[in-house]
Amino acid sequence: MKKILLIGAGLSASTLIRYILENSEIHDWKLRVGDYSLETAKRKINSHKNAEAIKFDIYDEKQREEEIKNSDIVISMLPARMHHMVAEFCIKYKKNMVTASYVSDEIKAMKDDVKKSGILILNEIGVDPGIDHMSAMQIIDRIKDAGGNITAFRSYTGGLIAPRYDNNPWNYKFTWNPRNVVVAGQGSAAQIIVNGKYKYIPYHRLFKRISRTEVLDYGEFEVYPNRDSLKYRKSYDLEKIPTMIRGTMRRPGFSKAWNIFVQLGATDDTYTLEDSENMTYREFINTFLQFIPDLTIEEKICKVFNIDEDSSVMFKLRWLGIFKNERIGLKNATPAQILQKIVEKKWIFEKHDKDMIVMQHKFEYELNGKKKEITSSLVIEGEDHTHTAMSATVGLPVGIAVKMILTGKIKEKGIHIPVSKAIYEPVLEELKKYGIKFTEEKREEF
Amino acid sequence: MKKILLIGAGLSASTLIRYILENSEIHDWKLRVGDYSLETAKRKINSHKNAEAIKFDIYDEKQREEEIKNSDIVISMLPARMHHMVAEFCIKYKKNMVTASYVSDEIKAMKDDVKKSGILILNEIGVDPGIDHMSAMQIIDRIKDAGGNITAFRSYTGGLIAPRYDNNPWNYKFTWNPRNVVVAGQGSAAQIIVNGKYKYIPYHRLFKRISRTEVLDYGEFEVYPNRDSLKYRKSYDLEKIPTMIRGTMRRPGFSKAWNIFVQLGATDDTYTLEDSENMTYREFINTFLQFIPDLTIEEKICKVFNIDEDSSVMFKLRWLGIFKNERIGLKNATPAQILQKIVEKKWIFEKHDKDMIVMQHKFEYELNGKKKEITSSLVIEGEDHTHTAMSATVGLPVGIAVKMILTGKIKEKGIHIPVSKAIYEPVLEELKKYGIKFTEEKREEF
Repeated sequence: MKKILLIGAGLSASTLIRYILENSEIHDWKLRVGDYSLETAKRKINSHKNAEAIKFDIYDEKQREEEIKNSDIVISMLPARMHHMVAEFCIKYKKNMVTASYVSDEIKAMKDDVKKSGILILNEIGVDPGIDHMSAMQIIDRIKDAGGNITAFRSYTGGLIAPRYDNNPWNYKFTWNPRNVVVAGQGSAAQIIVNGKYKYIPYHRLFKRISRTEVLDYGEFEVYPNRDSLKYRKSYDLEKIPTMIRGTMRRPGFSKAWNIFVQLGATDDTYTLEDSENMTYREFINTFLQFIPDLTIEEKICKVFNIDEDSSVMFKLRWLGIFKNERIGLKNATPAQILQKIVEKKWIFEKHDKDMIVMQHKFEYELNGKKKEITSSLVIEGEDHTHTAMSATVGLPVGIAVKMILTGKIKEKGIHIPVSKAIYEPVLEELKKYGIKFTEEKREEF
Repeated sequence: MKKILLIGAGLSASTLIRYILENSEIHDWKLRVGDYSLETAKRKINSHKNAEAIKFDIYDEKQREEEIKNSDIVISMLPARMHHMVAEFCIKYKKNMVTASYVSDEIKAMKDDVKKSGILILNEIGVDPGIDHMSAMQIIDRIKDAGGNITAFRSYTGGLIAPRYDNNPWNYKFTWNPRNVVVAGQGSAAQIIVNGKYKYIPYHRLFKRISRTEVLDYGEFEVYPNRDSLKYRKSYDLEKIPTMIRGTMRRPGFSKAWNIFVQLGATDDTYTLEDSENMTYREFINTFLQFIPDLTIEEKICKVFNIDEDSSVMFKLRWLGIFKNERIGLKNATPAQILQKIVEKKWIFEKHDKDMIVMQHKFEYELNGKKKEITSSLVIEGEDHTHTAMSATVGLPVGIAVKMILTGKIKEKGIHIPVSKAIYEPVLEELKKYGIKFTEEKREEF
């Protein structure tokens, strides 16, 4: 009997828990789900006989040590910044550990201890990061094995609303953490490489530097660059690739309208506004506009950004209610916090709605003197409001990896992300059973 | 005999040292000038019999303690972040201290110790901050004493090149710290208040939100808002003022052209560029522009910013040499460092050049039911390359304050900035003797 400890039973854990419990009988597993909210943990295991729910406080060191010590493998679905607190005891008690998040600097710093302990810490095995790495590496390795030379790699992912439920002018709903969407792209300039030249895109130009792509029968999407486009050149063994871009997908028109907020400064999260509590939404927007007594706020926006009152951008802005004289009611709030409140009221992922994960890789390469292209696309719609596409695409690769570690199919030791054939092949193979499979389109010169 | 210790003999200390030495005979002063470069200290005192030059290392705690202990008053012309290391021993040995810089958080935190010690730490008594506070407070107090109600206060300062030497298309030369000019305005949004409404201006819109003003016979200037416009409402006792803006002056057209660099992301100082050493200036600019094979870099700039190749903005940019195929030669450089290198080569304050300090306050107020306006303006041109307008306007108020403290005319204790009548009246009065005097223009409703 193997004991699996899962810490963090939030949004992305639902399908993971179902997967583990569905496999628990054959493999003789016991699952212990710990969450800060015992209620959440209980709801997620739904009285399954092979599962137990506990209240888990990551800051309770004694509990943390005890639970990890008594488990055979640990899955951390906590925020990335907390993983190192889990890793500490995984190292001490030689327990393998799996996460769906980026490798934090604290985890990187544990490299030698992890090695000494002989355990595996497998990170970035969710959807993005996760399925993106695995599906890209499968094609990269295939092209290389055939003797091809990859000259361009573009990789895009979006967490969106499924077409049938896509019924607002922004073509967007919050199927995931709203705060991450509001502050997306902030920080240092985004870095990409195009035809061998580095390109740096500051935050305030990010939503103007969009590209467009079509995905299968799902129509057109737009893409803005991620900040971290280049850090995977090394992991993917593409260090000399002339063109590489990673980006985030939205439906066409989103970026142009969102850019108004970026330009106004309404996404700023670094300072609080005076008396934000008593401000109205209309006043909030006016706070970023010049004092021009003869113009309405709507007219000022149109003038500053050179758009028409009846443009699709203004339609989107009006639809959000930003010109309403309603009180905000948030104390000491940053612009980003207020903007989040505004969009949260409108971009609601309703109970009956289904979400959608879209991923697309585009490769250009040369093989036997010919130029070729592969476009590999994935679209997954959610089952329902609990087993969302996000929950499935994050949770299933984690669950499959856990199974493969427990059954000895993954033998790697150390700190890893899933870029080696030994990991991605079986995981991608099993994902297909759950409908998570890519469609390839090819084009070549003759 | 009084011993004055001056720490930091850089650009802004020249006129201060001359002032102290000119006054040293009558007042029986000895001046000790300490600088990290003994050469600099020696050059500045020019073998004057009442002065001594020493090598001074602020990080040598023993020397610092010894020198402060043996002095009667300490002037710190170091960067603001270092003042607290001086203040520490001024408190211990009960020595008054004068600086021309902003009150740092570390100094603020010493409030109780300063009080206990019974000393005065007088800060912000240079030009901006300094002369701006004093000249503004003189008018504010005068209006209030007459029973007036101030409804708007706009205060602008610029460190520029004197008209006769103003011979480049940017109408700008580096008469002061180049780095501060390149990163000016970065950080949190600038905050101003207009007609009772707070306005927040993010960095990437700062150079678009300019206003214009005329100064005496010096013609037109443009002004972009400072980040700290509102923090002086309290010091000035103008907490309920409906309109208050502090800004930095440039000659017309500067901001529109500088804004191109801001928009490109070329003023960013938060990350380093890949292989900056081997990059050319032309490549540096292209690094911020989209890959469009059919357009030149110049054409891309014109397209992105919607300007003509023969516009005054493009003329300014071409004049800087940013489109040249010259190697940069700076290792691991940030965009801001490279941009600084580019502009430093062109905005040279030549040996025979003279600088200019421009300051203007604009007050709107109501008195006896009538609306009135006062515009108070100061323009100071430098004597030469050493005794610049900057050096005079920073150094003379410091020197005068030191004299007044030593002669007992300033009796204040604690941490202060020069906003009280007891300080600003005599300082402004003596500044007139050195030609530093404001011209008032008035306008009123009848």
